[in-house]
Amino acid sequence: MAATAPRRLRLGMVGGGEGAFIGAVHRIAARLDDCFELVAGALSSDAARAQASAGALGVARSYADWREMARVEGARDDGIDAVAIVTPNHLHAPVAHAFMDAGIHVICDKPLAVSLAEGEALARHAREANLVFALTHTYSGYPLVRHARELVAAGELGEVRVVQVEYAQDWLATPLERDGANRQASWRTDPAQAGPAGCLGDIGTHAYQLAAFVSGLTPESVAAEVHTFVPGRRVDDHVQAMLRYASGARGMLWASQVASGAENALRLRVYGTKAGLAFDQEEPNVLWFTPQGGEARRLTRGRVTGEAARHATRVPAGHPEGYLEAFAQLYRDAAAQIRARGEGVAPPQESLLLTTVDDGVAGLRFIEAVLASSAANGAWRSIG
Amino acid sequence: MAATAPRRLRLGMVGGGEGAFIGAVHRIAARLDDCFELVAGALSSDAARAQASAGALGVARSYADWREMARVEGARDDGIDAVAIVTPNHLHAPVAHAFMDAGIHVICDKPLAVSLAEGEALARHAREANLVFALTHTYSGYPLVRHARELVAAGELGEVRVVQVEYAQDWLATPLERDGANRQASWRTDPAQAGPAGCLGDIGTHAYQLAAFVSGLTPESVAAEVHTFVPGRRVDDHVQAMLRYASGARGMLWASQVASGAENALRLRVYGTKAGLAFDQEEPNVLWFTPQGGEARRLTRGRVTGEAARHATRVPAGHPEGYLEAFAQLYRDAAAQIRARGEGVAPPQESLLLTTVDDGVAGLRFIEAVLASSAANGAWRSIG
Amino acid sequence: MAATAPRRLRLGMVGGGEGAFIGAVHRIAARLDDCFELVAGALSSDAARAQASAGALGVARSYADWREMARVEGARDDGIDAVAIVTPNHLHAPVAHAFMDAGIHVICDKPLAVSLAEGEALARHAREANLVFALTHTYSGYPLVRHARELVAAGELGEVRVVQVEYAQDWLATPLERDGANRQASWRTDPAQAGPAGCLGDIGTHAYQLAAFVSGLTPESVAAEVHTFVPGRRVDDHVQAMLRYASGARGMLWASQVASGAENALRLRVYGTKAGLAFDQEEPNVLWFTPQGGEARRLTRGRVTGEAARHATRVPAGHPEGYLEAFAQLYRDAAAQIRARGEGVAPPQESLLLTTVDDGVAGLRFIEAVLASSAANGAWRSIG
Amino acid sequence: MAATAPRRLRLGMVGGGEGAFIGAVHRIAARLDDCFELVAGALSSDAARAQASAGALGVARSYADWREMARVEGARDDGIDAVAIVTPNHLHAPVAHAFMDAGIHVICDKPLAVSLAEGEALARHAREANLVFALTHTYSGYPLVRHARELVAAGELGEVRVVQVEYAQDWLATPLERDGANRQASWRTDPAQAGPAGCLGDIGTHAYQLAAFVSGLTPESVAAEVHTFVPGRRVDDHVQAMLRYASGARGMLWASQVASGAENALRLRVYGTKAGLAFDQEEPNVLWFTPQGGEARRLTRGRVTGEAARHATRVPAGHPEGYLEAFAQLYRDAAAQIRARGEGVAPPQESLLLTTVDDGVAGLRFIEAVLASSAANGAWRSIG
Repeated sequence: MAATAPRRLRLGMVGGGEGAFIGAVHRIAARLDDCFELVAGALSSDAARAQASAGALGVARSYADWREMARVEGARDDGIDAVAIVTPNHLHAPVAHAFMDAGIHVICDKPLAVSLAEGEALARHAREANLVFALTHTYSGYPLVRHARELVAAGELGEVRVVQVEYAQDWLATPLERDGANRQASWRTDPAQAGPAGCLGDIGTHAYQLAAFVSGLTPESVAAEVHTFVPGRRVDDHVQAMLRYASGARGMLWASQVASGAENALRLRVYGTKAGLAFDQEEPNVLWFTPQGGEARRLTRGRVTGEAARHATRVPAGHPEGYLEAFAQLYRDAAAQIRARGEGVAPPQESLLLTTVDDGVAGLRFIEAVLASSAANGAWRSIG
Repeated sequence: MAATAPRRLRLGMVGGGEGAFIGAVHRIAARLDDCFELVAGALSSDAARAQASAGALGVARSYADWREMARVEGARDDGIDAVAIVTPNHLHAPVAHAFMDAGIHVICDKPLAVSLAEGEALARHAREANLVFALTHTYSGYPLVRHARELVAAGELGEVRVVQVEYAQDWLATPLERDGANRQASWRTDPAQAGPAGCLGDIGTHAYQLAAFVSGLTPESVAAEVHTFVPGRRVDDHVQAMLRYASGARGMLWASQVASGAENALRLRVYGTKAGLAFDQEEPNVLWFTPQGGEARRLTRGRVTGEAARHATRVPAGHPEGYLEAFAQLYRDAAAQIRARGEGVAPPQESLLLTTVDDGVAGLRFIEAVLASSAANGAWRSIG
Repeated sequence: MAATAPRRLRLGMVGGGEGAFIGAVHRIAARLDDCFELVAGALSSDAARAQASAGALGVARSYADWREMARVEGARDDGIDAVAIVTPNHLHAPVAHAFMDAGIHVICDKPLAVSLAEGEALARHAREANLVFALTHTYSGYPLVRHARELVAAGELGEVRVVQVEYAQDWLATPLERDGANRQASWRTDPAQAGPAGCLGDIGTHAYQLAAFVSGLTPESVAAEVHTFVPGRRVDDHVQAMLRYASGARGMLWASQVASGAENALRLRVYGTKAGLAFDQEEPNVLWFTPQGGEARRLTRGRVTGEAARHATRVPAGHPEGYLEAFAQLYRDAAAQIRARGEGVAPPQESLLLTTVDDGVAGLRFIEAVLASSAANGAWRSIG
Repeated sequence: MAATAPRRLRLGMVGGGEGAFIGAVHRIAARLDDCFELVAGALSSDAARAQASAGALGVARSYADWREMARVEGARDDGIDAVAIVTPNHLHAPVAHAFMDAGIHVICDKPLAVSLAEGEALARHAREANLVFALTHTYSGYPLVRHARELVAAGELGEVRVVQVEYAQDWLATPLERDGANRQASWRTDPAQAGPAGCLGDIGTHAYQLAAFVSGLTPESVAAEVHTFVPGRRVDDHVQAMLRYASGARGMLWASQVASGAENALRLRVYGTKAGLAFDQEEPNVLWFTPQGGEARRLTRGRVTGEAARHATRVPAGHPEGYLEAFAQLYRDAAAQIRARGEGVAPPQESLLLTTVDDGVAGLRFIEAVLASSAANGAWRSIG
């Protein structure tokens, strides 16, 4: 008998009204692989704006308040299956708890929360409620990032010795937040909304997650310094860190939002006893693999044959996929897991690379260790 | 008053059942910007397969025959607004005529048809029926391709002197069609389905269209040679051509499906009296612009500020967009034009870069001229 | 017993006075591997300038006239072993004959001569006089060009199907020759000094030679067009050509000196049934090799292990070598051959990749065929 | 009156017998611009080997002992003007003192010495003896490195905020020194010959010097860790460091000889308030300059018009120069300074970018601070 299309999951969204960069990204990502339909939203903390956004976006059920939305949607027979949380960081935890209380799965932007304690409570809640809690570490959705992870896990690099990861941007090289016109700049540099970590929380956690995801290793300690270059800025806009791993591996992490000229330069290199690999987020259809003493091989999406990459690939080699597809991959994997929960079966193996609340907790542990080290003039501090 | 989301346009599809590469691409592209909902299909010439594909894809109304589909959908109040034609080439014309007869807009894969006469009839029909007829020359949907066109049009290159365009692949370097297992290889090398042009029609027309789109110039004559490298193949798998333009400009075009190692290497370079530019489809977030005697400038999607690029851009610089977004752009522009027709207003200016049946006719003129030149041992032949 | 350093060969130079780009290059190249000492020269057709240049360069014996130089040096016991000819093209032949008449080996810049007849006479003369006649097709001195040739010869590409070669510059995009200030622009665009081929002779022959050198194939016919873009220019500044090989292979050659933005962009791609390779003169420490359907391998100078590359390599991988080293390689190989002639032994195997008067003749055959084809509106013309 | 060629300076060499990589490099570099003639040498600590090497290289005066060589050459009327010291590190100081005692200028490989005290004594000696003491930090001889320095100095980057420098190799990823067959691996991993710093001294100092040279900034403190990955190795093969500058700038430095796949990957990035720049030693004909929020500009050797770059450039844009030319530049600048001393005049302005004993002292200060910090578990330590 022929397969039948599974029904689209019903998605709600909190935050992400018109004009918010990341809200639009989530909507495209949710739609791209046809797994979700956006049917409800509390798209802004401003009620009128929320309503207007819902209208403009064709969202059927608009709420002025996310608490009400959680309650109502949780009670409807045709209520949402999952909620996408795309608010400023400080709201991630309360919103997520509310929807989990209503039995609704969560897809949350990163960083997970504004403190480790908050994050751990979320992880506990998700576990106890048996809910899917995806955290959108976008870059782990790239096929070649997953392939890189697979290569390391398969021993193709030998024993990992060195991890070099960096994430450079330049959009905060000037005091963009000063006049309030750039909403994203404003909240991301406001500790009350962004949490205590600025650049560290926004992109440092991405770098940290990517390195851990691919290398399969979590550092045990860090010596770090956060720094604020732009006068008057209330959070860090630069972080540099050295890493030690239990295996003896060493690493460095650099993240900066004042690196003039850099767009979104997340780059990872991992060196093992047998080979090294390199990935550049801005050229995500390519992964470099070079044996010790040998020639670099330019692996490409669509030509690599590993299962993990294939699962995350839509179009053939030479037809570039990008950021939105990587993001969509997380939604696709979340959908697979949500459906499996609904059916009471184990989620498909290939969906398990989805980043979750646990990755978020790991990121918060890193943030706390970096801030502690920085406060101690760069002394080594244990991570978690 | 707040904007209201326009209703999603209803889309039908002919061809493109499960497993067909380009059908899946059209479906994602149609969905990505939330302009279309796929509601009807005659997804295969095999009735059972059509039904199975419709079920697996969740397409509400499945037809065993595209003639019936055109008739029924044209008669329904909630019939489809547009049909996507993703069949082998020889069916483009009859299918498109049938749907145009039913008053339904057309979004057709390229090449437009299997002969110039066929193509011209389609263009006439679309004009007389006042219907939108989009032709999916995907690569013209890239923001930086549109920006390149804008740079040339604005005189930033000076007078165009030289056009170099090439499109290299290697997937047909072996007789892939021989055992029939690869459906795409089979029909694309079958003159009865693909038309008289193989590589020339499949990718040569893309290269030709891209060069014309960006340079703003149509060559007046061509000296060319088509060639078949793989023994037993019934269509060309290689074409090389020299171009002359009325302005005195010169050009070369090369397309090959036996270029071992090449994935989907469509590359354009245009040189003018003041500057040159270069675009590589496999790195579509970058456009190179170099003044005569000067330094290359690496223009990036999201940082260039031209209107044409901005209209086709979804996410900021450094967050790569790719092939699917370029494809979606065509659907987005088609939607804008279809809506404008529905409202009896002029289409938005920014949607007018959509490639249409007229580009298809131009491509067929090129095919005929190349085949004529090749048959005349490479003598110069007028294009159109 | 320990090896003894061979004596440095004594080199003379005709042309190449101070300020002449290519004269300085020859002098560095001759010196770099310590094979030659420049001891005599007729460095300019202007006697005072010749004398001044000799003084400034520390050249021991300065001649006002190259005929006298040939005669005197040929008669001295410590006369020069070889002469480097770096004059405008029209003097290559008479100067070379004069020195060969004096029993002196020749190292000549390209193109060899201003007509095929002239070139063939030189080849005959060199053969009859049993003299080394090196022609400085610089790019064949790159280790990775030699390695590429070796890969093709070893069958690593399978049967060659497609050759794509191009050489783009922009230095003549404007009428640089008009005011006479740029001496090189002046003579290179003067048919009386450069010969009938402008861009075609200057860089088209380099492209042609490189393609033949690496592919191991000489095309049997060409369909071509030379063109002059810059008003008032007396030679071509642009050439485009299609190539046919006896094996059935196809090719294209493009050379332009009006390609705005291009510096010295000589690029070769060769595609065979099994793999393709690509070389870019501006990045000469890298050679790309990609199997059909496979991943690109970035071969690097110093890491490739072939004999041909090793012989032409001075420093380890990652320590870039460049144009001057490639040029020096020709001098080194010429020295080895000259010494072998002196000793009456066979030249070392590894020196035999030196380009010679025969490559020059091949280039002149190509020039004549291109000009003939162009005059016949691009009709196919046999090469040689 | 016409210029007269200055006489070639007479060069001696200590160390660098046949087969020693760096000795051959020095000889080519000395010869390339025709400033020096190698006339004397103590090419090996093994007398027979020294003699054999001298014979094979055509060095006129061979010494079994460098002390004797210094004495004899210092006393000859036609004694050497300068000595090139290319021994293992521990001999740099005694050899240099001996030749300076003889009134002979010094060109010494890096690192300068095996301790800061040794280095400071050399600097003092050179100053008191009024001798040129060049230290061959090769990479500062690249035209585009000098241009980068000029851009920073001219304020084109604004105020420097971030310095990122790294130097990765993989040649010591395995215990290459174990069997003694690789002479360079042996002495470079032997503390008695290399000094207390392995990777740190060999390439870490290059990275440090390059960063300081271009940025114009010397860090005031460092938090660092040296590490040895290869079991049994007696020196470090990996170093990671964080840097603080008095201006408030921050930086990171990474050097590794176990980075599998890396050849000679010295890369520098400097970010200022207005723009950033990037240089990769393996692609030395290119320098990237990107304004904050703007487009990357690919500056190329031969097209940049600054004086510093022009002085270090031999051939036009698009004709790659490499490592040997950068090295030769140091010899050329040293020659200019030596001649100026001889004539009692100020050295030419453009020769002053030559790296000297003072850069060596700075490097030793860095080594000592890194080792101190590493010994203190990465605590910040003042540099110098």
